[in-house]
Amino acid sequence: MKIIGVDIGGANTKITEIDENGKHIIKHIYLPMWKENHRLTEVLKQNCPESDFKVALVMTAELADSYATKEEGVIAILDAVAEAYSNKIPIENISVFDTEGNFISVDEAKINHMKVSASNWMATAELVKEINENCIFVDMGSTTTDIIPIKNGKVLANDNDLERLMNNELLYVGTLRTPLSFLANQINFRGVLSNVSSEYFAITGDVSIIMDKISENEYTCETADGKSTSVEDSLIRISKVLCTDLNQISKEEAVKIAEEYYDIWKNLIKTNVSLVSSKYDLKDVIITGLGEKILIDSLNSDYTIKSITEIYDKDVSLATPSYAVAKLMYDNL
Amino acid sequence: MKIIGVDIGGANTKITEIDENGKHIIKHIYLPMWKENHRLTEVLKQNCPESDFKVALVMTAELADSYATKEEGVIAILDAVAEAYSNKIPIENISVFDTEGNFISVDEAKINHMKVSASNWMATAELVKEINENCIFVDMGSTTTDIIPIKNGKVLANDNDLERLMNNELLYVGTLRTPLSFLANQINFRGVLSNVSSEYFAITGDVSIIMDKISENEYTCETADGKSTSVEDSLIRISKVLCTDLNQISKEEAVKIAEEYYDIWKNLIKTNVSLVSSKYDLKDVIITGLGEKILIDSLNSDYTIKSITEIYDKDVSLATPSYAVAKLMYDNL
Repeated sequence: MKIIGVDIGGANTKITEIDENGKHIIKHIYLPMWKENHRLTEVLKQNCPESDFKVALVMTAELADSYATKEEGVIAILDAVAEAYSNKIPIENISVFDTEGNFISVDEAKINHMKVSASNWMATAELVKEINENCIFVDMGSTTTDIIPIKNGKVLANDNDLERLMNNELLYVGTLRTPLSFLANQINFRGVLSNVSSEYFAITGDVSIIMDKISENEYTCETADGKSTSVEDSLIRISKVLCTDLNQISKEEAVKIAEEYYDIWKNLIKTNVSLVSSKYDLKDVIITGLGEKILIDSLNSDYTIKSITEIYDKDVSLATPSYAVAKLMYDNL
Repeated sequence: MKIIGVDIGGANTKITEIDENGKHIIKHIYLPMWKENHRLTEVLKQNCPESDFKVALVMTAELADSYATKEEGVIAILDAVAEAYSNKIPIENISVFDTEGNFISVDEAKINHMKVSASNWMATAELVKEINENCIFVDMGSTTTDIIPIKNGKVLANDNDLERLMNNELLYVGTLRTPLSFLANQINFRGVLSNVSSEYFAITGDVSIIMDKISENEYTCETADGKSTSVEDSLIRISKVLCTDLNQISKEEAVKIAEEYYDIWKNLIKTNVSLVSSKYDLKDVIITGLGEKILIDSLNSDYTIKSITEIYDKDVSLATPSYAVAKLMYDNL
């Protein structure tokens, strides 16, 4: 029987299909849940086999603004998922992965919404511990960075986002969507520490493009000004962070702003990983996600690094939780 | 002849009408220029006398995302303004205030766009220097805080936003619209320094409401989740900054998050004002804007403070640049 691993994130839904022979196909769908959550059922319907399959589900989109509480979000998402597959498979074929590493039924998940809220990183960690049972697993996606300690084959991370934030296991900085104003409200420019704008003028995707850490077609979210993902347009956006433009400052200076933010960004990653590293005495790091190159730049000098791209392939690296949850179910069959 | 002072900001347009007897009426119009700049002409048309008036203009909206450069923005805004009044007054009746403190014609402003870009604070400073010729003038509006040194009756601030950011004269934090994630990417919570979310979950308006520094109807911008401006809804939004909700943490803890951000906010104001204060050896502060109460909380212990609300009235305090530019033209007649 085919298995589909579904990871419903705030901005992207990722679906990994594993067939009877263990071959996988991965799909990425941009679906901004804070404004288009009504489209979820339709999107899932369009991206599944005809019949006779199982679904392994993880989610983080319940945190989106469309829902007042996580409970409301989890239940709405589970209802949308159940509806999407209701004509093709019995509801027993849908399992939800929880933050303790188990698959539970849709009904159980509805009752225990905190168990299934933001369990995507747990699915990946369960996969990673097979590779190295003493490591820090770091996944930088479009929006966030998960920093997961694995010790003696046990995933030691906290099981909800609040406690993960409090323990440096969740850093809300990703490869694309983080406003630069979040990284720092002051930066060095022309030799002085300058204030910056708090408007949504430029995001980490612009820095990733300018620093050549992703390709233009990997910049899959909307840009801040709706214009292209080119280096040229990214430089225009980044100049606005200092309330200026490419008439008033040079392109080289705009590149320097990007470099400055890139240094701050790398330091944030390094600081958070090092706090987890000292706490659990772990020096090996396994990295994955769209930001692998940025993670290497941040951590290479202090840690032994292996990437999911090397171990599997780039497709898996870009959608690790959906692959992991499908693979975990496949291995359980 | 009547005079209207028009201040076209990124989020709000404010219009002060001064009649032949010096009496003023002030209008606030929420007009988010980054998405509704096409409505500017119509909005101005609907808010002016029938005929026989003069227009005194300042702007900051040219920085909005709808324009690639300030030049493009200034010219588009000047065209929209000229069109709005074209049936009622000759174009010579429209004057644009520049960052050197002079009124220039629309045609001159088009040629020298940098002279009229973001000159609103200069208009206010020209008014304030009549009140105290040795002071720091601090205006916290919905979006930003201007910190303007006035020494021996001379306005010593830099004349463009880039240099004002670089010199602590522009702090991009306002009473309503600043994302809390800009104030700090880590806050104290339950005794630890915790990471926070970088999503657009809560803004300074929520803190202003929770800390009782503005009234619900002064929270004039959109909330982050589109819900109400009540304390209750503000607490829901603020809990999301830690990826949590009011099931997982108590209301008292959500209030503590607001207090934490309020402290960080006050410190940012204090630090920036104190750098300007030492540089120019100024200890008197004149405050204005929607955030007057917050400025008092931030600066009361270190400075002698007077507010525009005391000197004029609250209406003028909430729209000082449009009043100032109208008043300056009135006094010149």
